[in-house]
Amino acid sequence: MITLTSDFGLKDPYVAEMKAAILTINSKATIIDITHEVEKFKIRQAAFVLASAVPYFPEDTVHLAVVDPGVGTQRRAIIVKAKKTLFVGPDNGILVLAAQNQGIERVHELSNPKFMLSTISNTFHGRDVFAPAAAYLDEGVRPEEFGLEVKDFVNPEFVKIKKTKSSMIGEILHIDGFGNIITNIKEKDITGLNGQPVTIEFSKTSLKLPLAKTYGEAKPKEALALTGSHGFIEIALNQGNAAKKYHAKVGEKIKVAAY
Amino acid sequence: MITLTSDFGLKDPYVAEMKAAILTINSKATIIDITHEVEKFKIRQAAFVLASAVPYFPEDTVHLAVVDPGVGTQRRAIIVKAKKTLFVGPDNGILVLAAQNQGIERVHELSNPKFMLSTISNTFHGRDVFAPAAAYLDEGVRPEEFGLEVKDFVNPEFVKIKKTKSSMIGEILHIDGFGNIITNIKEKDITGLNGQPVTIEFSKTSLKLPLAKTYGEAKPKEALALTGSHGFIEIALNQGNAAKKYHAKVGEKIKVAAY
Amino acid sequence: MITLTSDFGLKDPYVAEMKAAILTINSKATIIDITHEVEKFKIRQAAFVLASAVPYFPEDTVHLAVVDPGVGTQRRAIIVKAKKTLFVGPDNGILVLAAQNQGIERVHELSNPKFMLSTISNTFHGRDVFAPAAAYLDEGVRPEEFGLEVKDFVNPEFVKIKKTKSSMIGEILHIDGFGNIITNIKEKDITGLNGQPVTIEFSKTSLKLPLAKTYGEAKPKEALALTGSHGFIEIALNQGNAAKKYHAKVGEKIKVAAY
Repeated sequence: MITLTSDFGLKDPYVAEMKAAILTINSKATIIDITHEVEKFKIRQAAFVLASAVPYFPEDTVHLAVVDPGVGTQRRAIIVKAKKTLFVGPDNGILVLAAQNQGIERVHELSNPKFMLSTISNTFHGRDVFAPAAAYLDEGVRPEEFGLEVKDFVNPEFVKIKKTKSSMIGEILHIDGFGNIITNIKEKDITGLNGQPVTIEFSKTSLKLPLAKTYGEAKPKEALALTGSHGFIEIALNQGNAAKKYHAKVGEKIKVAAY
Repeated sequence: MITLTSDFGLKDPYVAEMKAAILTINSKATIIDITHEVEKFKIRQAAFVLASAVPYFPEDTVHLAVVDPGVGTQRRAIIVKAKKTLFVGPDNGILVLAAQNQGIERVHELSNPKFMLSTISNTFHGRDVFAPAAAYLDEGVRPEEFGLEVKDFVNPEFVKIKKTKSSMIGEILHIDGFGNIITNIKEKDITGLNGQPVTIEFSKTSLKLPLAKTYGEAKPKEALALTGSHGFIEIALNQGNAAKKYHAKVGEKIKVAAY
Repeated sequence: MITLTSDFGLKDPYVAEMKAAILTINSKATIIDITHEVEKFKIRQAAFVLASAVPYFPEDTVHLAVVDPGVGTQRRAIIVKAKKTLFVGPDNGILVLAAQNQGIERVHELSNPKFMLSTISNTFHGRDVFAPAAAYLDEGVRPEEFGLEVKDFVNPEFVKIKKTKSSMIGEILHIDGFGNIITNIKEKDITGLNGQPVTIEFSKTSLKLPLAKTYGEAKPKEALALTGSHGFIEIALNQGNAAKKYHAKVGEKIKVAAY
């Protein structure tokens, strides 16, 4: 099985061309889209979405992810062999968060032209380089056949949390399609929380919210904090859009404290 | 075969996580998206879209639908055994319209933890409860193995039509991506229509329109009424967007009468 | 393998109903979406997107494309047998560009009711006529079994380029999801280009741009011209949206000249 994650959107033929490149090499591949609606060039958002989805896939899955502002420049293409699954994409950090959750075993450069399309464009390595590599990996070609081992792969610090006595300062990692504001802070990071309300501050907003188990504990359109399905604290409106109401933006600092 | 219908959108990993949960259990499943662009929390719209698509699928298909504002509360999860196919989703009415079109045979609660993921979040039963159930149903597990029979499932009244001497008053059921305004009224519901023009009234709009067979009978950008591909009377602009022009909204009352 | 291209969007059940119609006939078919986000009724845009994607698919693929403002009128349904692959859709030019790139061998009318759904709506031939035809073609039914040969199929002139001494005047063929402005002019069409800057004019915009190999050669948010992954000259902003910045529209005349 091969998954695809990108910022290509669905109105252009780009995603279909990647699938065509895969299926031309490996006609038995099952291809699942994680999303192609990552905001253009937002590597961190893609990394979060990929890391969220990966644990639910079978262990022999190959995950291809392409948000690639450096396409055609000197940035490397890499294959990451993690404990359970394989990842392929540009060496810009997009793969690292998901792979580190499993444990990274080895990283290889993807440089062997034998495993690429015969013509490589300067602008679309998703189709010409990464898709063929995913197809061959899914067929059983080993990472070391694609190129030399890489030790200095790009490894951004994704989760920056600052702990004070009574609070955590993290950031808004993602805003989902429901408008839920997803932080990078986990409930267990905060001492002294026992189902009590929390104080949440970001930008010009300051909220005191109940720490609930599920959206339905608040009245319709009322705000609450809860641990979302990926383990992070999020701010939500029951049947409403919290990000719109509070003008939240991905990347903003956010403080969570016991009230 | 398993179909998926939801309000999850395509920018988040939620749909992919449902597919991953299915394929981890049942790697042979063919999964088809009906849509994930139902307006957030609009159960009636999801019910209409599902009911529209189901008749075209093979008889042994399992249909999973999740628009689930009550997730994590006491609302039940159910499996509906209809004459031809199986349905799985929350007990909030989303499945009923499609199932009633075939005839409902039995409804079972989905409560046996054996057929769920090992960890159940409070906020995402699509992945943790419904997707695994669909995977097992597709593999042949019978509805009665998932839980006790349910008699008092939620059964909303979807199609409210008021018949007067010379007209029908129904409602706008759906506005499709082309801007076609789809009512819940069928041509045969109205006596005295023989291809003559009809009068249509909703909100502040009153129209006298030809009752056509196809969009191309009107000039480009001109309005017409016709029976759409799902059997309901709709108002359309040839090559234009009727809903935008007439400011139509889902749920509004609409009157159709012979002119 | 069967590909689907349309302007149906993803919020309605239309695409799923086409897939259901295919899989009911031919349960082994692999179905790949090229896109369903073609702008409503834009036949030329669909033709471009289809022609872009087709070369990457295996040779025995059946390509179904439906942008169909004339549905239900006298416009014909056709099957195009090109050198490598088969195409099915309305006879309005949508298939011609992709098929001509391979070489058209024969065109047949799609009129044999044996290969359609038993009930044909007036408004949705994608589901009732084209999808079943694609399913049967993929199973090996030959084009001549669907209807008589057609010689006078619609053949629009897609690529109108005017060559002057020192410039080419073409048009904006497509604006992709990144905002890249894709022309119908190829680098080799212009004499005297040797990696030198080019002058580009369209609407009220006049630009002198470097002719680059890849987006990353410009600084972030800076404009450049380059040959995109489909071989046409395009105008892009590195990590930005050129179409938005320069108010470009599909169909506008555009002039490219050596500076």
